[in-house]
Amino acid sequence: MFDIIIIGGGVAGMTAALYSLRNNKKVLLLEKETIGGQIAKSPKVENYPTHKEISGSQLADELFEQISALGVEFELEMVESISKEDGVFTVKTDYNNYQAKSVIIATGAKPRLLGLEKEEKFIGKGIYYCAICDGPFFAGKEVALIGDANSALQYALMLSSYCSKVHMFTLFDRFFGEKTLQEKVLATPNIIITHSAQAVKLSGGDSLESITFKTPDGKFIEHKTEGVFVAIGQVPDNVIFEKLTALDKAGYVNSNETCKTDTTGLFVAGDCRTKEVRQVTTAMSDGAIAATAACKYLNTL
Amino acid sequence: MFDIIIIGGGVAGMTAALYSLRNNKKVLLLEKETIGGQIAKSPKVENYPTHKEISGSQLADELFEQISALGVEFELEMVESISKEDGVFTVKTDYNNYQAKSVIIATGAKPRLLGLEKEEKFIGKGIYYCAICDGPFFAGKEVALIGDANSALQYALMLSSYCSKVHMFTLFDRFFGEKTLQEKVLATPNIIITHSAQAVKLSGGDSLESITFKTPDGKFIEHKTEGVFVAIGQVPDNVIFEKLTALDKAGYVNSNETCKTDTTGLFVAGDCRTKEVRQVTTAMSDGAIAATAACKYLNTL
Repeated sequence: MFDIIIIGGGVAGMTAALYSLRNNKKVLLLEKETIGGQIAKSPKVENYPTHKEISGSQLADELFEQISALGVEFELEMVESISKEDGVFTVKTDYNNYQAKSVIIATGAKPRLLGLEKEEKFIGKGIYYCAICDGPFFAGKEVALIGDANSALQYALMLSSYCSKVHMFTLFDRFFGEKTLQEKVLATPNIIITHSAQAVKLSGGDSLESITFKTPDGKFIEHKTEGVFVAIGQVPDNVIFEKLTALDKAGYVNSNETCKTDTTGLFVAGDCRTKEVRQVTTAMSDGAIAATAACKYLNTL
Repeated sequence: MFDIIIIGGGVAGMTAALYSLRNNKKVLLLEKETIGGQIAKSPKVENYPTHKEISGSQLADELFEQISALGVEFELEMVESISKEDGVFTVKTDYNNYQAKSVIIATGAKPRLLGLEKEEKFIGKGIYYCAICDGPFFAGKEVALIGDANSALQYALMLSSYCSKVHMFTLFDRFFGEKTLQEKVLATPNIIITHSAQAVKLSGGDSLESITFKTPDGKFIEHKTEGVFVAIGQVPDNVIFEKLTALDKAGYVNSNETCKTDTTGLFVAGDCRTKEVRQVTTAMSDGAIAATAACKYLNTL
């Protein structure tokens, strides 16, 4: 029987492990793919406090070493289901069943991909999903941006303030999202908008060199660029929890900064919960808060 | 005219600067005492992700270097007042007046001190205010704990789970705080409670060796210990903002995880706002969120 099972080995889950282990809890960390989550795919991270520059995979490795030294139990297994009976959680993976007095969900979220060939290969080498994180690497340069709703509009304004030009492409013939944002984007001279453009092809060698769009009349536009920001939404991965706790409309675990859920003993941390800003620092903060809440819960059992 | 003035150079304020600068904003960081805030007084930090062990001052120095390289403007000045007129904030310090389109309050909070001689000298050397952060250094050992309300009760339970004994001292003849927590503390065998004990003296050489309490009948108890946790509350420092934005009953800036205040263009980050868990990671998270919100606000002006 574990004190705490943490589902997800991204920075939220690992920080939750750090705080739980320092409080002498018996902790199992389950991860289905790779340690670090989304950040592990960023070759260059400049907005993590105290590291001027670090790769996402190194950041993940250092945090994993830190929790390994504290004795975390770690399994590379995929969680298939979770249930709670008589105050005990049973977590079933593709290999085992585990039991715990409390569970922290830290399954993260993934950016919605364009779904093009070579897209995965170009991540961090021309394809980016977070303008807050990676936009500044293109200061003074031209970038492309794909998306039509609030996040894309905000990214456009953000990028336009330090990039020479922002070439913005939308799938349909208009923007969605807040009118004030739309108006501001339309009024910004260095945002060049192309509506009704469907991304169909990524080209390049080691890194991205161009992206091709298809127009409704069947024509193709090849746009040469070293940086494409994709802002077409994020996808959480919480379906297995929907019987145990409330999810919001978009599929995120319904919670707030307390990281508590509506199920006693069940906590949530990081990108997988309802929140506005999804960054390494905000995920770690959640990890600390969820673990502290779980430890308090365990201490009063 | 600055884009953003950040008041407070702790980790929340510095992380806000990091995010603002990377978004090409003109940023002024004002700090009245020392860079780093509370964490700068911790000789050993083990719960900051990616650093197995780092001193609080080194952590602060590294973050300061990071924002200095990005071109932060920094002044060691004390803010005396702040006002807003026609969408522009004027921040008056003991030396200058500055103007900005937006302001982030990151003034932190301080633990309430016992008010004893040598207390400041023993901070991190026998006197601690955060059991979550520093408790684990005393795993397997005896500690003393001063306090009588929820935080103290929760610290007692937390410490008792890995310390051999927790000697708990309260000023009055009883506990305050939640009944369930009180009952759990009373039922925990290795928590030894002494009520009606007023801390009056700290003794030791380079580090703390004992603490002396006075009882209502005028007797003195000298308690030998290498670790005293003080949990008698925290004190924010937000009086100068009370005309500009709403403070809660305890004096914290009224906000939530959005880090927005009820004043347009005014944001808040870190320990100085209403929140439950005050840790380095949660302060940095706020810094990232407040800066992102401020940048979005500036981009739509």
